[in-house]
Amino acid sequence: MPAARKERSPNSQSPAIEDYLEQIHNLIESKGYARVVDIAQNLKISQASVTNMIQKLDAEGYLNYERYRGVTLTPEGKRVGQAIARRHDVLTRLLAGFGLDPETVHRDVEGMEHHVSKSTLRVLTLIVEELEGNAELLKRLKHKLDG
Amino acid sequence: MPAARKERSPNSQSPAIEDYLEQIHNLIESKGYARVVDIAQNLKISQASVTNMIQKLDAEGYLNYERYRGVTLTPEGKRVGQAIARRHDVLTRLLAGFGLDPETVHRDVEGMEHHVSKSTLRVLTLIVEELEGNAELLKRLKHKLDG
Ligand SMILES: [Mn+2]
Ligand SMILES: [Mn+2]
Repeated sequence: MPAARKERSPNSQSPAIEDYLEQIHNLIESKGYARVVDIAQNLKISQASVTNMIQKLDAEGYLNYERYRGVTLTPEGKRVGQAIARRHDVLTRLLAGFGLDPETVHRDVEGMEHHVSKSTLRVLTLIVEELEGNAELLKRLKHKLDG
Repeated sequence: MPAARKERSPNSQSPAIEDYLEQIHNLIESKGYARVVDIAQNLKISQASVTNMIQKLDAEGYLNYERYRGVTLTPEGKRVGQAIARRHDVLTRLLAGFGLDPETVHRDVEGMEHHVSKSTLRVLTLIVEELEGNAELLKRLKHKLDG
């Protein structure tokens, strides 16, 4: 066992903030820009609430918001959004790989992703990569799951 | 892939309630009884706050509280406490098995345990059991983790 290593909380941000930054990061990655209307739709929240939160996140240094231009992330905002997106991806691949119902996967992942430290992410990533590269192992475990 | 199956949220209770019921369940399992002083110490909360919450949980049907006798769980309270304790156990075995720092494990588990559906618990249990029974696999993955 390696020497125990203390680690700061992965995110001192609240889940809500993390979900906003994750959403904005994903929109920018996929569309090149993030608009309030799209953020509101993806988070199933009113545009007014999104605008409120966006202004708060702007004041806190996570993003820059210009009314007619949309939202861009600061380096810190990008760091947080990317970290959550990475956790979301690994957890989703792990559970979806076993064929779980997509709604269940989404709900569990949306909750768990805020509580995954860097160390835990590395463990989960190793497990996912093993399962994705080891068809025999995945098949054997899925057989137990379905049996 | 098996037919997708919709699943209710594992716990409609808030994390705080679940943590209380988990704690009480664990105390009853280990000591035979649960006293406010022990709950307060384990949750690092004042005895006054614990008494408040206990009265609320009594009113909601999760437990019975008698001032000089302590706390006993109703069947529903026991069901919730046991479900969280089981999630706590599986997540802890998974992460501790890789030698992660116990504090990091504890913090991540305390957060993740509230977002693990029954289906996800079954997947994680299968993985833990595989790793615990397959020393070669665990060793290989740990080697990548430490390397
Ligand atoms: Mn989330
Ligand atoms: Mn907890």
